[in-house]
Amino acid sequence: MTLDAPPTAASPLAIICGGGSLPRAVAEAVDRTGRRCVLFAIRGWAEPAAVAAFPHHWIDLGRYGRFRRLMQAEGCRDVVFIGSVLRPSVSHIRLDWETIRVLPDVWRAFHGGDNHLLSGVGRVLGGHGYRLIGAHEVAPDILVPEGPLGRLAPSPRDMADITLALELLRATSPYDVGQGTVVADRHVLALEAAEGTDRMLDRVADLRQQGRIRTKPGVGVLVKAAKVGQDHRFDLPTIGPKTVEGVARAELAGLAVVAGATIMAEPQEIVRKANAAGVFAVGVRSPQP
Amino acid sequence: MTLDAPPTAASPLAIICGGGSLPRAVAEAVDRTGRRCVLFAIRGWAEPAAVAAFPHHWIDLGRYGRFRRLMQAEGCRDVVFIGSVLRPSVSHIRLDWETIRVLPDVWRAFHGGDNHLLSGVGRVLGGHGYRLIGAHEVAPDILVPEGPLGRLAPSPRDMADITLALELLRATSPYDVGQGTVVADRHVLALEAAEGTDRMLDRVADLRQQGRIRTKPGVGVLVKAAKVGQDHRFDLPTIGPKTVEGVARAELAGLAVVAGATIMAEPQEIVRKANAAGVFAVGVRSPQP
Repeated sequence: MTLDAPPTAASPLAIICGGGSLPRAVAEAVDRTGRRCVLFAIRGWAEPAAVAAFPHHWIDLGRYGRFRRLMQAEGCRDVVFIGSVLRPSVSHIRLDWETIRVLPDVWRAFHGGDNHLLSGVGRVLGGHGYRLIGAHEVAPDILVPEGPLGRLAPSPRDMADITLALELLRATSPYDVGQGTVVADRHVLALEAAEGTDRMLDRVADLRQQGRIRTKPGVGVLVKAAKVGQDHRFDLPTIGPKTVEGVARAELAGLAVVAGATIMAEPQEIVRKANAAGVFAVGVRSPQP
Repeated sequence: MTLDAPPTAASPLAIICGGGSLPRAVAEAVDRTGRRCVLFAIRGWAEPAAVAAFPHHWIDLGRYGRFRRLMQAEGCRDVVFIGSVLRPSVSHIRLDWETIRVLPDVWRAFHGGDNHLLSGVGRVLGGHGYRLIGAHEVAPDILVPEGPLGRLAPSPRDMADITLALELLRATSPYDVGQGTVVADRHVLALEAAEGTDRMLDRVADLRQQGRIRTKPGVGVLVKAAKVGQDHRFDLPTIGPKTVEGVARAELAGLAVVAGATIMAEPQEIVRKANAAGVFAVGVRSPQP
């Protein structure tokens, strides 16, 4: 924690933490703006190391009453939800009374994809006077800017692959599929669904090793884009150093994401790894009208 | 070979054989109609066991002149192209003169996806007086009929998943992506691209084992459909006993394909395995207008 930044008048920010390193990155970025954070680490999802450096509470899914009391005690009004989530196994959740009261709303949210699930959580929080805001609103420097992040930039062929990939992701968007694809010389090599980006990249690396990909190493792009109409408050695509490693292992030219609508974890590490591996990482404009 | 069927007046049918068991299934089905077949097994792709029971020649990619001379010697006019193809590694192909003459056409076909590649081959053959026809035209009983193949039929929930999957495949169709998807309770679990159907099903089985799929075992459908506007002469989706095994391993309810536009290898085995595993295999009407 930096102690030299002046505290703002605002109430402390509640950060509900899912898995991965993003909660910590967001907390650090908010901390740099001088605002106090309180982390609510979801048991089973959040990583102890990601929350240890900040004031934090461990919370359980299904214990909404306890969460509300902690929020009150901490004086929090604004809530950010960040980190990876897994669809919970319903049989492992023990419910408290307040949760049972809000359950019908949450239950409706369970049907449909991730987007709907989190929208439901947002509705419940909003109905109780909390303001669910996006991580990018409190820590704008975690968003990928436009242009290359590292030393390398995409070639015209890469740009053609990126354009095709963004069109494809737009076409699959209404079906709540994943947010990533790999396109090489205008061939779609992989489309992401439940497996996630890292496994999709592993698959491309495997296919390449097995000689099932005929485009040369160094050709092809990973492209990630938010779903059309996606609520930016809790479900932006994310890249991190691991993404760059996956791109390098799959022997692609680089990765492209939508500038201003993608979160980056550990930007310095992204740049360092991209430069070391000879791949580009670029923020591009959204093709949306 | 059955010898009791009367030979037709038609010229012998040339079957150019790619990989897998389909070439044999087609040759047997054609043989049952009484027409003589000559198999042209593509070295590196065709399996010796799949062509051994019929008169056959081994041919090489890039040796079009030799292929033409063999076609003439056998008196073949009609050509069927069947079996799996891999995008060839250009550096391994040795060319003869006739191939070099037709190369500009083939070269154009190399750019773009499978569909274009095979369309180019069709153009070249057609230009030389051969008639490229679909396997389903000479062996209609290899196509999946409408309705359940085995004992089980899809439930209303399965039908909802099938409808969603067909819509999704229609949306990805212009991008020359794979022809398969797995949808469970309206969630898209996997989309097929370069990896093929079997590996996609393996992935779903893995995700399930790792607890990353929350829909219950026994829920979810594999759906395959031809791309919109796809040339049925050489690129129909295919199912076989292995597909059923994959569906069972992924703990899905069953598989659905478009009736009349999907080839089945070893239909009796498909039915036997589906019944034994308690999964359905159904031919549905195409949602196309």
